[in-house]
Amino acid sequence: MSPADLTPLANAIRFLSIDTIVHATEGHQGVPLGMAEIATALFTRHLKFNPADPTWPDRDRFVLSNGHGSMLLYSLLYLTGYAKIGLDQVKSFRELGSHCAGHPEFDPAAGIEVTTGPLGQGIANAFGMAVAEAYLNAKFGPDLIDHYTWAFVGDGCLQEGIGQEMISLAGHLKLGKLILFWDDNLITDDGATSLSISENVAARFRVAGWHVVELDGHDVEAVSAAIALAKKDPRPSLIACRTVIGRGIPRLQGSRGGHSARLYAEDAAAARELLGWTHPPFEIPGDILAAWRAAGRRSDADHAAWQARLAALPAAERAEFERVQAGELPTGWREVLLGYKRDAAAATEPRPGIFASGEINDLLTEVLPERIVGCADLEAPTSHKRSLTAFTAEDRSGAYVHCGVREHLMGSMANGIAAHGGAIALAVTYLAFSDYERPSMRMAALMGLPVKFVFSHDSIGVGKNGPTHQPVEILASLRAMPNMLVMRPADAVEAAECWEVALEQRRTPASLIFARQALPTVRRSHIDDNLSRRGAYVLAQPEGGKRAVTLLATGSEVAVALAARELLQADGIPTAVVSMPCWELFDAQDAAYRNAVLGEGTVRVGVEAALRFGWDQYLGSRGGFVGMKGFGASGPVDQLYELFGITPAAVAAEAKRHL
Amino acid sequence: MSPADLTPLANAIRFLSIDTIVHATEGHQGVPLGMAEIATALFTRHLKFNPADPTWPDRDRFVLSNGHGSMLLYSLLYLTGYAKIGLDQVKSFRELGSHCAGHPEFDPAAGIEVTTGPLGQGIANAFGMAVAEAYLNAKFGPDLIDHYTWAFVGDGCLQEGIGQEMISLAGHLKLGKLILFWDDNLITDDGATSLSISENVAARFRVAGWHVVELDGHDVEAVSAAIALAKKDPRPSLIACRTVIGRGIPRLQGSRGGHSARLYAEDAAAARELLGWTHPPFEIPGDILAAWRAAGRRSDADHAAWQARLAALPAAERAEFERVQAGELPTGWREVLLGYKRDAAAATEPRPGIFASGEINDLLTEVLPERIVGCADLEAPTSHKRSLTAFTAEDRSGAYVHCGVREHLMGSMANGIAAHGGAIALAVTYLAFSDYERPSMRMAALMGLPVKFVFSHDSIGVGKNGPTHQPVEILASLRAMPNMLVMRPADAVEAAECWEVALEQRRTPASLIFARQALPTVRRSHIDDNLSRRGAYVLAQPEGGKRAVTLLATGSEVAVALAARELLQADGIPTAVVSMPCWELFDAQDAAYRNAVLGEGTVRVGVEAALRFGWDQYLGSRGGFVGMKGFGASGPVDQLYELFGITPAAVAAEAKRHL
Repeated sequence: MSPADLTPLANAIRFLSIDTIVHATEGHQGVPLGMAEIATALFTRHLKFNPADPTWPDRDRFVLSNGHGSMLLYSLLYLTGYAKIGLDQVKSFRELGSHCAGHPEFDPAAGIEVTTGPLGQGIANAFGMAVAEAYLNAKFGPDLIDHYTWAFVGDGCLQEGIGQEMISLAGHLKLGKLILFWDDNLITDDGATSLSISENVAARFRVAGWHVVELDGHDVEAVSAAIALAKKDPRPSLIACRTVIGRGIPRLQGSRGGHSARLYAEDAAAARELLGWTHPPFEIPGDILAAWRAAGRRSDADHAAWQARLAALPAAERAEFERVQAGELPTGWREVLLGYKRDAAAATEPRPGIFASGEINDLLTEVLPERIVGCADLEAPTSHKRSLTAFTAEDRSGAYVHCGVREHLMGSMANGIAAHGGAIALAVTYLAFSDYERPSMRMAALMGLPVKFVFSHDSIGVGKNGPTHQPVEILASLRAMPNMLVMRPADAVEAAECWEVALEQRRTPASLIFARQALPTVRRSHIDDNLSRRGAYVLAQPEGGKRAVTLLATGSEVAVALAARELLQADGIPTAVVSMPCWELFDAQDAAYRNAVLGEGTVRVGVEAALRFGWDQYLGSRGGFVGMKGFGASGPVDQLYELFGITPAAVAAEAKRHL
Repeated sequence: MSPADLTPLANAIRFLSIDTIVHATEGHQGVPLGMAEIATALFTRHLKFNPADPTWPDRDRFVLSNGHGSMLLYSLLYLTGYAKIGLDQVKSFRELGSHCAGHPEFDPAAGIEVTTGPLGQGIANAFGMAVAEAYLNAKFGPDLIDHYTWAFVGDGCLQEGIGQEMISLAGHLKLGKLILFWDDNLITDDGATSLSISENVAARFRVAGWHVVELDGHDVEAVSAAIALAKKDPRPSLIACRTVIGRGIPRLQGSRGGHSARLYAEDAAAARELLGWTHPPFEIPGDILAAWRAAGRRSDADHAAWQARLAALPAAERAEFERVQAGELPTGWREVLLGYKRDAAAATEPRPGIFASGEINDLLTEVLPERIVGCADLEAPTSHKRSLTAFTAEDRSGAYVHCGVREHLMGSMANGIAAHGGAIALAVTYLAFSDYERPSMRMAALMGLPVKFVFSHDSIGVGKNGPTHQPVEILASLRAMPNMLVMRPADAVEAAECWEVALEQRRTPASLIFARQALPTVRRSHIDDNLSRRGAYVLAQPEGGKRAVTLLATGSEVAVALAARELLQADGIPTAVVSMPCWELFDAQDAAYRNAVLGEGTVRVGVEAALRFGWDQYLGSRGGFVGMKGFGASGPVDQLYELFGITPAAVAAEAKRHL
């Protein structure tokens, strides 16, 4: 085999994929067969990576955004020598417990940088990785961070709105180290792309300021040359690769069935015939495997040099880099929060709920500089820029990304930053627009990325902007999501506590949800202990502790519950108020604590300016609830609370009705 | 006032908006002040509308996609003479109960075609309206339907992914009667648009095949001329209007504060000085108001001619048009469903759940032809095209829109079709991707548009494609939404019943959710009565009716519950199975029915391949549950059900544990 002839290497991908998909009886052959040459060009000549040290911080990031083509990735990981992706794993493709799942599942140690499948997510993650790279490059210098981010992308990813958002903002930010390979095969699941698109995709990228090369995606040399060009261009690059979907399967190639029609042994045989591949299933000839393994060692010298540079750093600098890479928190951050909490408990003037989060983040900037904050064109009302500067095409040291009105991209950018490592990602918008971001939030929860999704304007407290902007169901819809902490602090004290818990997370994202309107301080005496850490706690109780009524509330309604308690106590009804800033944390407490807080045997009334959905688990079968029954309305906040009956008097009446 | 000089008319919009916003102490002046000339050109010279008959089926549709600029719309509606928007309503802008809410709220009788505010939704609705127009134009002919759809749009709507999806697909479909006016004012909420975008927006539209004109948005004659051109062009048109945000307020115009910084009486005074407007607040001089009212009567002759054409139609043809316009269902549709249901009860072979919905829709085509089905590139696996043909640039009679991989646009297109009237809109994709569509679904629920959101692949039953494609939390997140019927039929019988209820809705959208995998028939004896109409019903019960255990299940898990019942009955435990295809319908039943179905006093166990969140309301404090505890996994379906313990044996054990 001539070293220059990479065809056998590409075909190794093809047949590993074909044999595996035949064996699994399902899979998506379109991508691995169509992009085999592209992958070969990238992995054997350009990608900086090290299968022996998969999480090397300065490795290039590779994202398979068209994640249904997962066999392409698994083939590459096996061939280049990632220990976690042995042949046994490849053979167990799509079986329970295999590292080679139907769609790639986040596992950097296996070479899988992000979970992909829902279209558009991967390229938006790649965008986030490129942002993280640029930021860390500016912060730590090119000796430590200086790498490319590559993504393979199909037509679907580019049709999705999130993909379009990414194209626009990546061009604007001139993320020159972000390079996409478009699998331009003219086919989607429904058939010809001409069913649903007729624009010139390359031209669309050019309009957004990208460098674009168009070529034959089966010409390894052309691809390799285009990569070399793209690496030098200061703009983000699209390498538009005209390919034949399912190339190599005579019955299906170039047609709709090339995407994922079932493959049979006869197809594998016909492909062998067509491509001259004479080797039995799952057997990669020694010279070809050796060539692939050599490709996997291509960056060994780079890797060693990088390690030497790291080792040569002054100890403090190195320690800081390693801390940030490991996602460890520095000393001192907790004290900052504690100080803020102490001051907040003493504050007498009500302040907008979201400002607490803004203030906390501002205070953390010095001690915890590794945060990158994205915001979807709501800087002023959400207040998280403050002393941060903007991350721009000219200045990569800024930690605030003006995302424009692109919530979905923002969420997936945050996921990409978190998956990249080295920075803590925040994504900030109004709670009503969390729906735009929700597919990203689900991916964060699924991957276990500790992104902080920060939301303001959390209820009818939004007021006159009306029901489009007033969440009533969104708390419930987020609480329904597995592995997502949903936090709704009652005041600045709880805000500090919730931020402390959120920052401690290593594998769980958090939704930090704040009111727009001014909130009184409900936690007026300071204690060091983080009460929110247990999810819910008794905020006020009758003397002696014996209670007839337990009012359970979150966020802005804790103050309503406290006022209702005054009314009930005045009527001789001993009443406790439980603040429940985070249900998921509370659910994780032991039964004794939960029962004690919930007041087993007392009348329980939930109070939240949202729908009852989900509350019954805490209210028991005879529990009461004061909240919303449907969408909100446009009007002044106080009138809305009256209109919807979320008042101390209504809460007291509800409690009495159940006594 | 010279009839040719429209400046005073534009200023009437300005001062009505300024005075109202000063009075309300908040609002968004940027749009009404920046787009006053554009609106004047459109409404006084081109728009086909009739304030005296606001819901005239052949009126042009006007959508204010930048809905925060609602005072522009209210000003126009008042000035042109819509009865529901009197000066009293305008003065009560943003007050509780006003027709002039913070953001426009769907009320065609008031001239408000759709609710807008969440950015991008309005232009996607307008796209849907243009699709509906083209379809109805082909179906009923231009004598009855032949109108334009106009939308005002800001930078935000175009940055949003859904806006980009719309640009792409509208160009592809050559929706020539869709005309956008871009308020190109170089400002968003964060400040200069250059913070977050640098692409040439006009060029981006041109790439997508749009006709684009760029002009000064304060030049009424230029705008009017561009409109005349746009109406003739076979492509969709963008009229890119360079404007000055907040034009007329010396302190704010052209700057970030022009968007929505608070206006004071001094600002109103300064604007009067600047623009030479001498009239007191809320006073529109008689000649100017008369000119506006005359504009509101511009289409009177068109309107009369249209009515004459309708009256001249053969009775049957006219009746059919009026039926469809009124959203009335034809005779015979119910019988089709009943016939299908009878056959389904007799079917012995399990079939993929989603196929039932596909078959039902296919059968309805003849009797209920007014359906437009959108699907996001999943034609084959969701099976809703069948005998339908594609709606294309060349053939508007097709009722199936290949939306491409653009779920968000699809959902809002469906909303636009429903708001337009004359067609029933379906939007079809996988349940896992409902998150992409969710902002549209929320708008459907909020507006009360009876869109049918159809979903397949509803659980871990998806199997090897893995957790990205396996909903576990999505049923709960949809059930959390107000005014949304969430239906999960257990078999083809319930599928027909749920479709019947969904089609009856006039003000409530439905999510019709189906399994990918084959489902056995659980309703084996036919009855005409629609049991699903009550949301939940007793499917199987012990002889004599006295039960110790009640198993509550939905969708594919009803069969699991039935099998568990066999086990329990065999152990001498009298057990009932309740099928709960739609919680919202069940919650609307009286307490006696609900208690009887739920089996007050029995041990209750919920069974659903989803999270428990939301189930507690039916299970009581000591209820059991068999379902998911987190995200799914990639593997064969049967193994997944075993792995996650959703089996008849596990259900029986759970019941026994609670006995």
